[in-house]
Amino acid sequence: MSLNSFGHLFRVTTWGESHGPAIGCTVDGCPPGFALSEADIQPWLDRRKPGQNKYTTQRKEPDEVRILSGVYEGMTTGTPIQLMIENTDQRSKDYGEIAQSFRPGHADITYHQKYGIRDPRGGGRSSARETASRVAAGGVARAVLAGMVPGLKITGYMVQMGTKVIDRSRFDAAEIERNPFWVPDAQAAADWAVYLDELRLSHNSVGAVIEVVAEGVPPGLGAPLYAKLDSDLAAAMMSINAVKGVEIGEGMASAALTGVENADEIRMGPDGPEFLSNHAGGILGGISTGQPVVCRFAVKPTSSILTPRKTVTRDGNEVDLVTKGRHDPCVGIRAVPVGEAMMACVILDHLLLDRGQTGGVRGQIG
Amino acid sequence: MSLNSFGHLFRVTTWGESHGPAIGCTVDGCPPGFALSEADIQPWLDRRKPGQNKYTTQRKEPDEVRILSGVYEGMTTGTPIQLMIENTDQRSKDYGEIAQSFRPGHADITYHQKYGIRDPRGGGRSSARETASRVAAGGVARAVLAGMVPGLKITGYMVQMGTKVIDRSRFDAAEIERNPFWVPDAQAAADWAVYLDELRLSHNSVGAVIEVVAEGVPPGLGAPLYAKLDSDLAAAMMSINAVKGVEIGEGMASAALTGVENADEIRMGPDGPEFLSNHAGGILGGISTGQPVVCRFAVKPTSSILTPRKTVTRDGNEVDLVTKGRHDPCVGIRAVPVGEAMMACVILDHLLLDRGQTGGVRGQIG
Amino acid sequence: MSLNSFGHLFRVTTWGESHGPAIGCTVDGCPPGFALSEADIQPWLDRRKPGQNKYTTQRKEPDEVRILSGVYEGMTTGTPIQLMIENTDQRSKDYGEIAQSFRPGHADITYHQKYGIRDPRGGGRSSARETASRVAAGGVARAVLAGMVPGLKITGYMVQMGTKVIDRSRFDAAEIERNPFWVPDAQAAADWAVYLDELRLSHNSVGAVIEVVAEGVPPGLGAPLYAKLDSDLAAAMMSINAVKGVEIGEGMASAALTGVENADEIRMGPDGPEFLSNHAGGILGGISTGQPVVCRFAVKPTSSILTPRKTVTRDGNEVDLVTKGRHDPCVGIRAVPVGEAMMACVILDHLLLDRGQTGGVRGQIG
Amino acid sequence: MSLNSFGHLFRVTTWGESHGPAIGCTVDGCPPGFALSEADIQPWLDRRKPGQNKYTTQRKEPDEVRILSGVYEGMTTGTPIQLMIENTDQRSKDYGEIAQSFRPGHADITYHQKYGIRDPRGGGRSSARETASRVAAGGVARAVLAGMVPGLKITGYMVQMGTKVIDRSRFDAAEIERNPFWVPDAQAAADWAVYLDELRLSHNSVGAVIEVVAEGVPPGLGAPLYAKLDSDLAAAMMSINAVKGVEIGEGMASAALTGVENADEIRMGPDGPEFLSNHAGGILGGISTGQPVVCRFAVKPTSSILTPRKTVTRDGNEVDLVTKGRHDPCVGIRAVPVGEAMMACVILDHLLLDRGQTGGVRGQIG
Repeated sequence: MSLNSFGHLFRVTTWGESHGPAIGCTVDGCPPGFALSEADIQPWLDRRKPGQNKYTTQRKEPDEVRILSGVYEGMTTGTPIQLMIENTDQRSKDYGEIAQSFRPGHADITYHQKYGIRDPRGGGRSSARETASRVAAGGVARAVLAGMVPGLKITGYMVQMGTKVIDRSRFDAAEIERNPFWVPDAQAAADWAVYLDELRLSHNSVGAVIEVVAEGVPPGLGAPLYAKLDSDLAAAMMSINAVKGVEIGEGMASAALTGVENADEIRMGPDGPEFLSNHAGGILGGISTGQPVVCRFAVKPTSSILTPRKTVTRDGNEVDLVTKGRHDPCVGIRAVPVGEAMMACVILDHLLLDRGQTGGVRGQIG
Repeated sequence: MSLNSFGHLFRVTTWGESHGPAIGCTVDGCPPGFALSEADIQPWLDRRKPGQNKYTTQRKEPDEVRILSGVYEGMTTGTPIQLMIENTDQRSKDYGEIAQSFRPGHADITYHQKYGIRDPRGGGRSSARETASRVAAGGVARAVLAGMVPGLKITGYMVQMGTKVIDRSRFDAAEIERNPFWVPDAQAAADWAVYLDELRLSHNSVGAVIEVVAEGVPPGLGAPLYAKLDSDLAAAMMSINAVKGVEIGEGMASAALTGVENADEIRMGPDGPEFLSNHAGGILGGISTGQPVVCRFAVKPTSSILTPRKTVTRDGNEVDLVTKGRHDPCVGIRAVPVGEAMMACVILDHLLLDRGQTGGVRGQIG
Repeated sequence: MSLNSFGHLFRVTTWGESHGPAIGCTVDGCPPGFALSEADIQPWLDRRKPGQNKYTTQRKEPDEVRILSGVYEGMTTGTPIQLMIENTDQRSKDYGEIAQSFRPGHADITYHQKYGIRDPRGGGRSSARETASRVAAGGVARAVLAGMVPGLKITGYMVQMGTKVIDRSRFDAAEIERNPFWVPDAQAAADWAVYLDELRLSHNSVGAVIEVVAEGVPPGLGAPLYAKLDSDLAAAMMSINAVKGVEIGEGMASAALTGVENADEIRMGPDGPEFLSNHAGGILGGISTGQPVVCRFAVKPTSSILTPRKTVTRDGNEVDLVTKGRHDPCVGIRAVPVGEAMMACVILDHLLLDRGQTGGVRGQIG
Repeated sequence: MSLNSFGHLFRVTTWGESHGPAIGCTVDGCPPGFALSEADIQPWLDRRKPGQNKYTTQRKEPDEVRILSGVYEGMTTGTPIQLMIENTDQRSKDYGEIAQSFRPGHADITYHQKYGIRDPRGGGRSSARETASRVAAGGVARAVLAGMVPGLKITGYMVQMGTKVIDRSRFDAAEIERNPFWVPDAQAAADWAVYLDELRLSHNSVGAVIEVVAEGVPPGLGAPLYAKLDSDLAAAMMSINAVKGVEIGEGMASAALTGVENADEIRMGPDGPEFLSNHAGGILGGISTGQPVVCRFAVKPTSSILTPRKTVTRDGNEVDLVTKGRHDPCVGIRAVPVGEAMMACVILDHLLLDRGQTGGVRGQIG
């Protein structure tokens, strides 16, 4: 019910505004007895950190996470884990104008309409900065998953930036960490750099599609019908700023398939049933199949741009607004670690939920 | 937390298996004092009812809803409303074989793995039959919305069936109720009939994309960040059987847009701010803007088909399975009223949630 | 969040009015693979059934429970279990007058004020009849607990009726099922019969205190700080009609104890630590200790009595109201099986919740 | 579902251990547009603060609260409010021994059994220090209530300490703030001081009963049957450390009353119906009547005492334990402001919940 929480048993509540003293989250329901320190979380935050290259906002912040509770002598205790990240680079002067006018495509106007008041500094609560809390929570989830499901691996990458779509025949996982776009293709990385530079210099921005894959997810996770694994993933990804679409497996393209094409046929392998394809994206009936869980989401282009756009002020005056300040030309880039974090949280949550209801015992085949 | 519930304040819990004695749902948190009888709900169920034409399953059931509680002298009382629909056409003999083997693309295998037991009759809990409960709950939501937000209108229709996509220049809302596909284009309806007949006769099936639009939604609905209106819509739609993707506004296509293109510019109209476009699909920052809320979802092709597919049995034997029985060649058709129902439930839920937190007072502009 | 649900993972949602067509509940989150049929639930309902002796309402109903979902071939499937009990003895004529006036001490006036409408037939939703749904849900919980925690035993009994308090030196568990008051003392049963007859014949009623003890509860159940085992028990018991107080262990009397007296000292026994007393009622810090969980609750006297009481009508007229009809002289009698049912539900819920978070592994001592 | 949260719409999640760097809470769902600063919260914390007299622990901490989010220019924004209190006086050396042994009557043993690990420093999460977060959240609730329900007044006081019970004929509200026991009777304050001094010097401790009254609560708050106002109050109070019993109105004593005695008769007053007594404690059927809401709870004696008690160590050795350090001889004293805070949170939560479902419209009488 909580408006700023997600998850059932592994439950994360985030708080904080972009330019307040700090942001953070409470991770409740974490299993006890897992090794955890700031050093387990910080690397994930460092991947999301702005200012690492010219394609992300030039805001410079160390984004250092502190664990304030729930850990004793380097181990989780089962009590709530409070993670706090101080905001150190708050240039509130940049945002004076937007206190009075509403950036088109931004949450400014709806926060104002709903609450009658909003914190305009850096976008306040609607800033992408909130996603740092998600990444921190994801770091906790990963630390626990590492112990509970040793073979689990979560990988996010961009598959589309603007009109540029990757050629999957050139997919190279090793390339993901080598370029600023997290794109699994060196050639695409080079092309996209030129493309995004042009957009940035023309005071424009562009959207993106991120794919997150979880390998090694055990079968049986997901609780039909309203706590389905895919339903929870959809909610988790759609809750990320600027996301406008979520797909599982074939996603929207499944509409164009026939039943014959779409069926993931099954044969017996050495360790049990094996699927001959994965159109389902690892989820059937809301429950994981044991295949890789494949999720994609689209991020709209950054709405804060240097090109003037028509809007109105709180007083009802019509103006043309240029959003000065430091903005990501493609906010989708930094959404990659965020999507991974949400995947980690959802999977751990469902591991605990399934263990609660079923004891984790699996029906046998063969 | 409930595994079979959705909604925050207007909360629906569904129950029932395809071939058990009945299915139904409890609608909790319904506002008191609204007129409600079976006659308000039945028409929506009739639209979803199978067996109405050759494109939907030939299962014949009246799908008559009964209100068992929560209504007194034709008015909602604020106590839980129990809606029950008896199952009358249960041909369990059709489903003998699938008790032993797993239909590819179906939830058979995952239910078995998770629970170690499943009700195979008609797909049990994973049957599309469960969506009748959603439609019934949606009928309650519509009855309340009619009183609370008089101008609100929710319309669902198909925009794609298999490889056939509608031509939006021929969009004709009046056509939606005239053809079995709920497609807003008479020409498409004729073409699709031929197309689907061919697929059906070749023992195949096909997917679809449904669009649901809510007009007249007041601004201010949606509670960031994890009870966002779009996040809850994504979860609601993804929880429908066979759905693999959900989009708001431009959806996945927003990735290809630039910030200049995507910005919905704002001018002052006679009654306040007006947007010059609606790429956002009526939602910014998780909160409704007052523009039409536009949601699309993709339904995968029916997995129960008469074409043999490779699979395994519970005993681990490899078999080729033909799913006999009565199946929809395009289950997406019947998902149209289901999508409308979920939209109605989500909007009412957020109306109540917003009224709870803010009192429904709106920030002024101009 | 649901207004008519309780429990975290084992979650019960009740519905229905006293004189509507039926009452019932949905049990969600039940573990799969446990034997369950109506025959497992009916005996518990029979214990609560009215009309069994002159001390309970003369309403005659078979209270036959039907399982409508969630069970296949006599086994729970993990999907929601719908339990329905039809109302067969609805004498609405008895309740004509109370539609216009408010019984003192009853929920009539508050339902009217809150909702602006109420179902006056038999008390509608506020009738003690709703507790039949709790007992049915408790029957499901007991069936699962019998499999999961073989030694668990839940026993409820009356320890006080009106001004009569049991003498614990004469406590005889075997006596509980032998008298209409569930009192563990044959002498008290005889005395109370005389006492209650007098009250009944003088058109009066009286309150009671019920004690429910759960033996064999494993240590480690309960999730501090807001899902504590005692906090959930308090909510569960206080949600029963007419309950005005809840105690754990020493309860209110613990205020008068010193720290020296109250400490349950610990020694090592053959199987681990043993407590030398149980002032705590089996719960420390919100978590079960392994000792018997002891809970008591007070039920106020039935407010529907044949003695005239001053009240007002909806029109604001002052009247003296005599509540005709069939009433329990001590509604606390029938609260005994209800309290047991709530105890069973809370314990199972916490077993699942604990298994979800910790895997059910226990810290070692010695 | 969250283990460390309470409330439906006004939802508080607490975190932190006694001797970690800080404790605090997130207040989610707070209505926007209410004036709030640290100065509104600090006075309530100061009342709870330890070390103010010889009857509370000598731990000296300023307990300064910081608002880290959710407030902009002195007004609540509707986004989550993070409240943090740094721990400044952490004498971990005092607690070395209890890391190895379990204090009788304390949560040491159950935390160990449940989680396999516990933070022993100052009691970790099970310390009464957590209640500071509740008081801070209560301060936020009070600030909003002051605007929403101007006449509302919440008052807590002790009515029993050990074997000493107040004489209600001498009740003097003005006295409450004048003595260290919050007792509404100057004579009792003097007597209790002698009594508690003796207990303290004999290395003992004692329990207490606190009564919290909310005057000016509008009728109609509370959502039957499982979000009843009294059910939520019971859970809220029972979740406070060391509480073993909760009563509403007559509480446990209602068992001894007859229906004739217990009925709060009703007459018409100038502004609507008026009750002639308040045995119900302001709640009927789980819904507020408009009369004062009266809640009592019992706090057991402090379990950390200087008198040796028999216990065991983690290794299974039997020892006699003396709990050195700084302890409250009557922890119930500091529970007074905590009980008030929980009352404030529950009432605000139900105000919002009721406004959400019903719009706050009331059924008319007369």
